[in-house]
Amino acid sequence: MSTNQRTRLLIACEDRPGIIAAVSETLFSLGGNIVTADQHSESPDSGMFFMRIEFDRPSAPDGLADLAEAFRPLTVRFGMQLRLSPADHKKRLAIFVSREGHCLQELLWQIESGEIRAEVSCIISNHPTLAPVAAARNIPFYHVPVPKDGKAEAEAEAERLLAAHGVDLAVLARYMQILSPKFANAWHGRLINIHHSFLPAFVGPNPYRQAYERGVKLIGATAHYVTPELDAGPIIEQDVQRVDHRHRVADLARLGRHIERMVLARAVRWHVEDRVIIHQNRTVVFP
Amino acid sequence: MSTNQRTRLLIACEDRPGIIAAVSETLFSLGGNIVTADQHSESPDSGMFFMRIEFDRPSAPDGLADLAEAFRPLTVRFGMQLRLSPADHKKRLAIFVSREGHCLQELLWQIESGEIRAEVSCIISNHPTLAPVAAARNIPFYHVPVPKDGKAEAEAEAERLLAAHGVDLAVLARYMQILSPKFANAWHGRLINIHHSFLPAFVGPNPYRQAYERGVKLIGATAHYVTPELDAGPIIEQDVQRVDHRHRVADLARLGRHIERMVLARAVRWHVEDRVIIHQNRTVVFP
Amino acid sequence: MSTNQRTRLLIACEDRPGIIAAVSETLFSLGGNIVTADQHSESPDSGMFFMRIEFDRPSAPDGLADLAEAFRPLTVRFGMQLRLSPADHKKRLAIFVSREGHCLQELLWQIESGEIRAEVSCIISNHPTLAPVAAARNIPFYHVPVPKDGKAEAEAEAERLLAAHGVDLAVLARYMQILSPKFANAWHGRLINIHHSFLPAFVGPNPYRQAYERGVKLIGATAHYVTPELDAGPIIEQDVQRVDHRHRVADLARLGRHIERMVLARAVRWHVEDRVIIHQNRTVVFP
Amino acid sequence: MSTNQRTRLLIACEDRPGIIAAVSETLFSLGGNIVTADQHSESPDSGMFFMRIEFDRPSAPDGLADLAEAFRPLTVRFGMQLRLSPADHKKRLAIFVSREGHCLQELLWQIESGEIRAEVSCIISNHPTLAPVAAARNIPFYHVPVPKDGKAEAEAEAERLLAAHGVDLAVLARYMQILSPKFANAWHGRLINIHHSFLPAFVGPNPYRQAYERGVKLIGATAHYVTPELDAGPIIEQDVQRVDHRHRVADLARLGRHIERMVLARAVRWHVEDRVIIHQNRTVVFP
Repeated sequence: MSTNQRTRLLIACEDRPGIIAAVSETLFSLGGNIVTADQHSESPDSGMFFMRIEFDRPSAPDGLADLAEAFRPLTVRFGMQLRLSPADHKKRLAIFVSREGHCLQELLWQIESGEIRAEVSCIISNHPTLAPVAAARNIPFYHVPVPKDGKAEAEAEAERLLAAHGVDLAVLARYMQILSPKFANAWHGRLINIHHSFLPAFVGPNPYRQAYERGVKLIGATAHYVTPELDAGPIIEQDVQRVDHRHRVADLARLGRHIERMVLARAVRWHVEDRVIIHQNRTVVFP
Repeated sequence: MSTNQRTRLLIACEDRPGIIAAVSETLFSLGGNIVTADQHSESPDSGMFFMRIEFDRPSAPDGLADLAEAFRPLTVRFGMQLRLSPADHKKRLAIFVSREGHCLQELLWQIESGEIRAEVSCIISNHPTLAPVAAARNIPFYHVPVPKDGKAEAEAEAERLLAAHGVDLAVLARYMQILSPKFANAWHGRLINIHHSFLPAFVGPNPYRQAYERGVKLIGATAHYVTPELDAGPIIEQDVQRVDHRHRVADLARLGRHIERMVLARAVRWHVEDRVIIHQNRTVVFP
Repeated sequence: MSTNQRTRLLIACEDRPGIIAAVSETLFSLGGNIVTADQHSESPDSGMFFMRIEFDRPSAPDGLADLAEAFRPLTVRFGMQLRLSPADHKKRLAIFVSREGHCLQELLWQIESGEIRAEVSCIISNHPTLAPVAAARNIPFYHVPVPKDGKAEAEAEAERLLAAHGVDLAVLARYMQILSPKFANAWHGRLINIHHSFLPAFVGPNPYRQAYERGVKLIGATAHYVTPELDAGPIIEQDVQRVDHRHRVADLARLGRHIERMVLARAVRWHVEDRVIIHQNRTVVFP
Repeated sequence: MSTNQRTRLLIACEDRPGIIAAVSETLFSLGGNIVTADQHSESPDSGMFFMRIEFDRPSAPDGLADLAEAFRPLTVRFGMQLRLSPADHKKRLAIFVSREGHCLQELLWQIESGEIRAEVSCIISNHPTLAPVAAARNIPFYHVPVPKDGKAEAEAEAERLLAAHGVDLAVLARYMQILSPKFANAWHGRLINIHHSFLPAFVGPNPYRQAYERGVKLIGATAHYVTPELDAGPIIEQDVQRVDHRHRVADLARLGRHIERMVLARAVRWHVEDRVIIHQNRTVVFP
């Protein structure tokens, strides 16, 4: 007796007539029932077409293999990039932190409450400060210091840990180290950072001080995929909060922490639900 | 030589496997190219399925007749309610006003700037106050007073005007009269009101005074389709603005005017772009 | 050698010329240096005047006694209600919960991080569910069940606990019991509730279901002082979040939890910083 | 018989004990009744103190002269910068525009409705496009073209017009010319620009295209005083609007227009109500 299995399908290709018909016909022929379908066309701008489908079908003995097979003709015909993932697979996260724990706490909390469906495989930090937070939950905590002249070794150690834990997504939850271009490239599309400003304003260190000095009337936070260029990767989510002349740097940092953790949590949630497609330096985030 | 014609298709039916495949296949067979497609399923809650498609196809000599014909089997098979409308048809509006002009002004402005694609066929008011606004744009203005014992006659006159002007959508842009259930029913789904509160809070008259007295920290406005029950029809759009103890009733009214006009303009825009489907007392608004 | 002591002064009286001059002159004569001063006049509406001052002055051996003495002539002259509180006194909280922990967690977290300056003296619940949260922090947890016919006893027990712990402020952090008018009156101005709707919309149980059924486009939460009438007390803070037709009741509840905890935390923060003055059924919240 | 006259007092000086007492005592001695008082101290950061008071007093035959006289000792004692202005004086605006009329329209509208208390003395444009908007309201419209090699002459002409019209405040309402440092300096604190981005993001031309290419999830607008450095002057007000991958450059521009006009209108309103104090590159905006 087979049970129903929910699967997610992400598609990116050049826009052409007939894509939706071909995809939905193929799914229908496999006994799939589309639960949600979202698509986005950038034609004529970039000419690209993106689609996300969640569908149910009787679970197959060989997992997604028959699906991949059935879609092969379409990937050829439309030059399609296609990703299939079972909805019941919980992605395995590694969370990088330094001393500040608010983003880590929010992620752990939303994961525990089931709001973010993911598994925290390990926490990696250049400081021992937050070890007790991990210990209280029996999550492996690795203190990987980053000495000035030991950056490469630290990254190699982090790579080893990510591999050992079978990590699907690494999250920089106020990790105050800049990762090398090599690392960023190796984890392209699987490495999310929270930056405590409304990017592209206030790139780099001390964004709240920068914001104070510029006298802005709103502060913000930005969750983005990490790329070799600092704070310049594809943005997943941003939000802001109104401030005024009464708020000093410490107030901006205090208010900002709440935006940071909410913005990062939303970005991680959308990523683990396969809602995000990266195209060049922008993201399509299907709601 | 045929040119391309953009058409909008709205669908509502019970959710069942195969709808998207059938619809997209039918469109594809007619030479239609889907430009945007949005769908929404309330299965298993209400079990309903809703869809909006914009597609291009070579313009046909008989307009939408062949499309309607081609979709007939689907409407039978799926018990589908289906609406086709040519995207280049500008809907004809009648705008009802009383003394306050801000909502009228915003609508006229957004229509003139092309942001809202519609035609203002006439302005109807129970006061002569805003006649000059209409005159400056050569829009017919009808002063239809509503004396205490002449409500039925006034509504009959309004009905005559709407018919004479071939009105597709009537908009109550701060029209300070309550229309009869008969009128509301006759124009169901084609009659939009702006209420100056965050419904369902503060139904009825003087919502800003009610808001002040309740001491709320946010005020709002709500655009909704009119139904026989006062301020209880399907909500299309709402928005709010932060206020505090310094704001008196007059301040709330002043700040509220900006929300009212923006909210109403968005609702009218979405309606004329065939983005709104009413189901029972709720709306699906496709983005 | 004396050190500086920061004190807060809250004033409410009928508005008349000369109040600010008299108060600031009195403070100046006592060696006080005003750090922040905010005032609000509802003249001519209600005719009331409200003021909050934070000032530093050399600490006195008898605490605030000399200050109270120095202000006595003003309280007589202007019919002033006056409250003095030392800024370094951490108010003692009792947090009431039922099964859902998000509001409790947020409060504990902001208190631990120093964002809310308060002390949690105890947690009281009609369910044992959240006992481990208290245990992990060594906070006394009292399970006070509320059987149908034992409401009065439960309230009496709660009263005893509040007295025993010297509680300054009781916070209902998703406590799913309605307190009696007697209790509400006894704790007037010292009892804050979070209601999971944008009051006065959706008073009573299941506000997210009510919101779903009404089809609102924004959901909200409201922190207010408790009064005998259900969900009708003076509002301290509200906030909202945009939703759309895709959000079902469970989604509204999930999104709403984030608003609830933020709104409640802000309200508690403002209360413990003596920023809130209740006047009739409205609040003045000095920023 | 004297009538009451409302006056506004703005103060900036180094923070020291006794300022509020001295100012309020002085006002009280002159028969002044404080209607609103707001103050802000940046001590110890910058050490500055700022204050805004609105007060009523019997109108004096020599206007504000006696007030200025009475405050002279304080300006000496505290090194105070002090500005007195009668609340009933409507500031005279010059509005600079190019081809896009939405900011101009919003300002005219809010001025006509009494929301912004100001007088539009003239409209100056490098294009004739918006002349009819001025003509319809009998506002002098000056077409001052800015040829590549005639910038200095154009600015000189603008200066002559501002002088001839006794202009208090010049507003760049989407004026697509960069003014010279000389002009910016001459009008320091009296020249407001609206920039169509969330500054400091996207300085310079085509901010909506820049925003699209960066893939931001919020777009914004910023009203600021003009200084010699492009888009770098003190910010008065900012706001944002959520966007997503569906929005192309034209959509951002369309949505942005609504933010631009609201943000600019608020900034102008606050300026003409003497609510803004510039200190270095930041503003204090008293609510």
